[in-house]
Amino acid sequence: MIVVMKQGATLDQVDQVAKRVREMKLKDQVIVGQELTVVAVVGDDRFKDRNAFEVMDGVDRVVPILSPYKRASREGRPGKTVITFPGGATIGGTQIPVIAGPCSVESREQIVEIAHMMKAAGAVGLRGGAFKPRTNPYSFQGMGEEGLKHLAQARAETGLFIVTEVMSIDQVDLVCEYADVLQIGARNMQNFNLLSRVGETNKPVLLKRGMSATLEEFLLAAEYVLARGNPNVILCERGIRTFEDYVRNTLPLAIVPALHALTHLPVVVDPSHGTGKADLVEPMCRAAVAAGADGLIIETHTNPAKAMTDGAQSLTPAAFAAMMKSTARIAAAVDRTM
Amino acid sequence: MIVVMKQGATLDQVDQVAKRVREMKLKDQVIVGQELTVVAVVGDDRFKDRNAFEVMDGVDRVVPILSPYKRASREGRPGKTVITFPGGATIGGTQIPVIAGPCSVESREQIVEIAHMMKAAGAVGLRGGAFKPRTNPYSFQGMGEEGLKHLAQARAETGLFIVTEVMSIDQVDLVCEYADVLQIGARNMQNFNLLSRVGETNKPVLLKRGMSATLEEFLLAAEYVLARGNPNVILCERGIRTFEDYVRNTLPLAIVPALHALTHLPVVVDPSHGTGKADLVEPMCRAAVAAGADGLIIETHTNPAKAMTDGAQSLTPAAFAAMMKSTARIAAAVDRTM
Amino acid sequence: MIVVMKQGATLDQVDQVAKRVREMKLKDQVIVGQELTVVAVVGDDRFKDRNAFEVMDGVDRVVPILSPYKRASREGRPGKTVITFPGGATIGGTQIPVIAGPCSVESREQIVEIAHMMKAAGAVGLRGGAFKPRTNPYSFQGMGEEGLKHLAQARAETGLFIVTEVMSIDQVDLVCEYADVLQIGARNMQNFNLLSRVGETNKPVLLKRGMSATLEEFLLAAEYVLARGNPNVILCERGIRTFEDYVRNTLPLAIVPALHALTHLPVVVDPSHGTGKADLVEPMCRAAVAAGADGLIIETHTNPAKAMTDGAQSLTPAAFAAMMKSTARIAAAVDRTM
Amino acid sequence: MIVVMKQGATLDQVDQVAKRVREMKLKDQVIVGQELTVVAVVGDDRFKDRNAFEVMDGVDRVVPILSPYKRASREGRPGKTVITFPGGATIGGTQIPVIAGPCSVESREQIVEIAHMMKAAGAVGLRGGAFKPRTNPYSFQGMGEEGLKHLAQARAETGLFIVTEVMSIDQVDLVCEYADVLQIGARNMQNFNLLSRVGETNKPVLLKRGMSATLEEFLLAAEYVLARGNPNVILCERGIRTFEDYVRNTLPLAIVPALHALTHLPVVVDPSHGTGKADLVEPMCRAAVAAGADGLIIETHTNPAKAMTDGAQSLTPAAFAAMMKSTARIAAAVDRTM
Repeated sequence: MIVVMKQGATLDQVDQVAKRVREMKLKDQVIVGQELTVVAVVGDDRFKDRNAFEVMDGVDRVVPILSPYKRASREGRPGKTVITFPGGATIGGTQIPVIAGPCSVESREQIVEIAHMMKAAGAVGLRGGAFKPRTNPYSFQGMGEEGLKHLAQARAETGLFIVTEVMSIDQVDLVCEYADVLQIGARNMQNFNLLSRVGETNKPVLLKRGMSATLEEFLLAAEYVLARGNPNVILCERGIRTFEDYVRNTLPLAIVPALHALTHLPVVVDPSHGTGKADLVEPMCRAAVAAGADGLIIETHTNPAKAMTDGAQSLTPAAFAAMMKSTARIAAAVDRTM
Repeated sequence: MIVVMKQGATLDQVDQVAKRVREMKLKDQVIVGQELTVVAVVGDDRFKDRNAFEVMDGVDRVVPILSPYKRASREGRPGKTVITFPGGATIGGTQIPVIAGPCSVESREQIVEIAHMMKAAGAVGLRGGAFKPRTNPYSFQGMGEEGLKHLAQARAETGLFIVTEVMSIDQVDLVCEYADVLQIGARNMQNFNLLSRVGETNKPVLLKRGMSATLEEFLLAAEYVLARGNPNVILCERGIRTFEDYVRNTLPLAIVPALHALTHLPVVVDPSHGTGKADLVEPMCRAAVAAGADGLIIETHTNPAKAMTDGAQSLTPAAFAAMMKSTARIAAAVDRTM
Repeated sequence: MIVVMKQGATLDQVDQVAKRVREMKLKDQVIVGQELTVVAVVGDDRFKDRNAFEVMDGVDRVVPILSPYKRASREGRPGKTVITFPGGATIGGTQIPVIAGPCSVESREQIVEIAHMMKAAGAVGLRGGAFKPRTNPYSFQGMGEEGLKHLAQARAETGLFIVTEVMSIDQVDLVCEYADVLQIGARNMQNFNLLSRVGETNKPVLLKRGMSATLEEFLLAAEYVLARGNPNVILCERGIRTFEDYVRNTLPLAIVPALHALTHLPVVVDPSHGTGKADLVEPMCRAAVAAGADGLIIETHTNPAKAMTDGAQSLTPAAFAAMMKSTARIAAAVDRTM
Repeated sequence: MIVVMKQGATLDQVDQVAKRVREMKLKDQVIVGQELTVVAVVGDDRFKDRNAFEVMDGVDRVVPILSPYKRASREGRPGKTVITFPGGATIGGTQIPVIAGPCSVESREQIVEIAHMMKAAGAVGLRGGAFKPRTNPYSFQGMGEEGLKHLAQARAETGLFIVTEVMSIDQVDLVCEYADVLQIGARNMQNFNLLSRVGETNKPVLLKRGMSATLEEFLLAAEYVLARGNPNVILCERGIRTFEDYVRNTLPLAIVPALHALTHLPVVVDPSHGTGKADLVEPMCRAAVAAGADGLIIETHTNPAKAMTDGAQSLTPAAFAAMMKSTARIAAAVDRTM
């Protein structure tokens, strides 16, 4: 880190900063500029608290230089993480797996029917919520374990692997019994106890970006899972909250190549939450793949008008099939397959 | 809600919408305008899913009219909620209680010493984290139960009531043994399982606004607690995430009078997180009280430079005492006491 | 619009609202709900001030129903606007024109050299600033008319059409002498005098979205130009300001299909400003075309390290040629040509 | 500035950076860290382009150290700028002048009547727009010069000084004939030609912050005016655009003390635009003064329901008088007068 002194800082104040650096077993290098002085901290200060300097007399601010995550960074692992799902599909290589299904599991018939349709259209994974985080306490909160059983039945019939959300540490064991991939929702991206807990399982974790998380916070959330020994984290961009009002969320696709430059973890895009409008999903699926996304996760429903949750952003099976067709052309144009 | 039809929607499409309204046991009223047609839904549609209409053919969008929270709203309870803390201080009346203390409990000596100083300067509550949500998995995560015991000791010596964060459902029982007020952190504002769980306790809940939560989401999070039977929710504004870069968060004080117009719940302001800079805390304490805040929660530390967390935004005891003095003058100017 | 009354509004207050509606020569329709009453305003209230109702006693809020732009909307003109540039390239049809060049015109040699290179790589238009809006008053402000002459020279040698910014009403006549397309910069998107003035010219206008403009404000800015009689407006998305810090701006590509649904005007994307980083430009070019962009505008420089402005986001000629190649494959995958 | 090299940058790449520093007549200081190397640039690099380094091979990023404004900064001028208005009121000292009046001048009677009322309630300045920036091209655009004459008449009758907006360089001479203070609107904060032009006049300039401007951009806009020789700039915070939807803009009051720490220029707050709702104006006036604002600018109207613009945020004369009374108590509590 670089400690920037205030204009007019005294020599003694600079000395105090340098002394504190050495107390931390790091080296200091003082640079006296024309207008002000900075103290460079030399050594691995990744886990040192910049606050210790920020509050010192004569200090203006502290500029961090090293990124604070290690296991998630490219530096630690130069290649890409490739994860193989049950059924054989992979993520992180040239294949772009598509995970599709309803927002919520509503009944056995519903999930089995849609699973067959998604499979036929080319999906390799099935999504569906059994535990639902709902903004409104009076809204439908999901079917719970019964929903998980229906998902397992759909997997048995179709071979699709199962992605489903776990909301709370006390659900982890139960969800692990049924799911192939544990989803951490955007609202829980900084639920650190939950992140640590799923880091102790052996299931891949699909980690959704919080709606106002910075890229660094996103990678640090992944680091929580990695630090507990689970190497299989899939990052999922699902849109951020901005002032824009023609969409539910703003989908910032430049994060896809930005993440690829910083981390070896695969990056999935969720254009359903990322826009909140069914009409915008197909063009944003194409755009995500063109930007380099490693996978897609899409909400679909046989009858969006009767969906218990999030119908407005759900594709019908016909719209999903059309999306798969047009997006596969984009995948081919970037030398990948869907 | 109002269902707005697309320009060029057919009569049949309008009829389908009207029919769906009646299926929901509500009344429809069709308004044929010069350019387009809308269908007003008459009745309590608060718990009906607008999505059912949004996905219908010919529908452009749905405009909700009723606010989705009930227990938190002024309509259900015209007065203000007044909560009395152990020790006799109240919130929601003319008194403006000040809760102060370090970000983290670091040792028994530390918390007892600062408690005495805060008490002497006029604080009535003591804050301090035993369980710490940290963005970085490698940072200090709090002292756990030992920290709670130190807080209890500080209370025994000073009479200050204790506010401390609970991060996870499995900590609720433990924290309830020691704390007088349960704090839900900003990152957990939509951790719905945790909200429901603290709604089952009999402790007042200090609910921090999520850093990108809308006012409606904030009140719906409070509604989760209220709906489980706990009537004592204290709303806490602690800053939102925006593009501004001279502060850690943007502190939007207009939410204070806006909340007072909508809800009977007391509103506390946290200028420490709300700015992230010690120099800005005192002016924002004054501004918060001038805007009508019912309480303040402030980070303080005897030696900010040695604080294990958040030192840069912590006031020294001397700065805290100065703030109390200048803010008390503002309180008097709005006919309140501190 | 829909006037939503407060809970507890009196019959008399409702009557006053209805009366005001009729005074505006519009029809009122009162809908008495279970919890509250709304007054629907029937007729073309597009140019009526909702404020007249918002301030009346008993009114909670006003919900607009009609969009406030007319000429820019699909309703007024069902097809797409197709503009033909000097040299024969078109925008708004199947062709996706690429406009490339340096941020600033720096010398005759520089602009002529880069123009030849861009032409060879497949660009059809040349961009380059002669008048530069600079955040810092001490930065290079552009070459002025001399720069315009160099642009004209580059056009004479290559046949590329010229796009250049006009910053102020007193520059319009001068810039019109040289430019083929007038660019309105993001900082001037709501410089209404300037919009009106370029609306009086017969040059196509490339209108950049303001960095915090809503979609509606963007279309209303276009409406300013259209209302003065100039039908040829090209909308340009160049990124918005959000909390994201790994990019200079957040590029929200969902606006491309969202605009196509609302307006007949062509939509261009600027991934150079939209990301601020050269490494992210190529993937976002591909994504923009996949999302349906009608054109691209890209910053390029023969020696980015020596560029007087915006070098960090400029592509070298080699990187530009590579982008053209990979993006042309995406264009083909959506049945378009570049 | 500090040039941060990529991990794995070669010695030769570091040398190239150092060489470039010396070419700029600055000194380089290379710091070889454990994980990466940085090159500190020593000397006044304020007007050097960081881009020159950002695009070099092996460079990760560039961190600026010096702030880019000079005349606006405290370093150049340690005291505060105090401006005296015609009539004798001052800003920047202990007095907190209040400027009030309608959004638009609508008629001679209207502006003269409201001016008398504002004067009686304690205002010292009169605001009112003769040239109006309107988002919608079909909305009322102001009375132009006739409006300016009405303002002058109101001044003649009341002694209030006049603040009115100038939107375009061709209006500057005209507006200077009538106005005492030139207002630059938020949408024109980066209209650099206009800033330069008003910098050549001898009238104080009230510069509104752009709705998504950073603090640094705000001060650089002031620097444009100062750099042309006009020392009298008044900064005006009027709210920023965020995701919040219960207000028209988010009013970030922490900018008041943050600006006071960085600049000698006086800071005014506009709670009318800063909230967009009349009910929130009074509490935010109090909060602004408590936070240290040097002045207030408030929209008022004798009949908000008939206001041609912005009625919903206008105070009635009675509400204005009540605000003056309660805010004067806050001013006294911070040892200032209104």
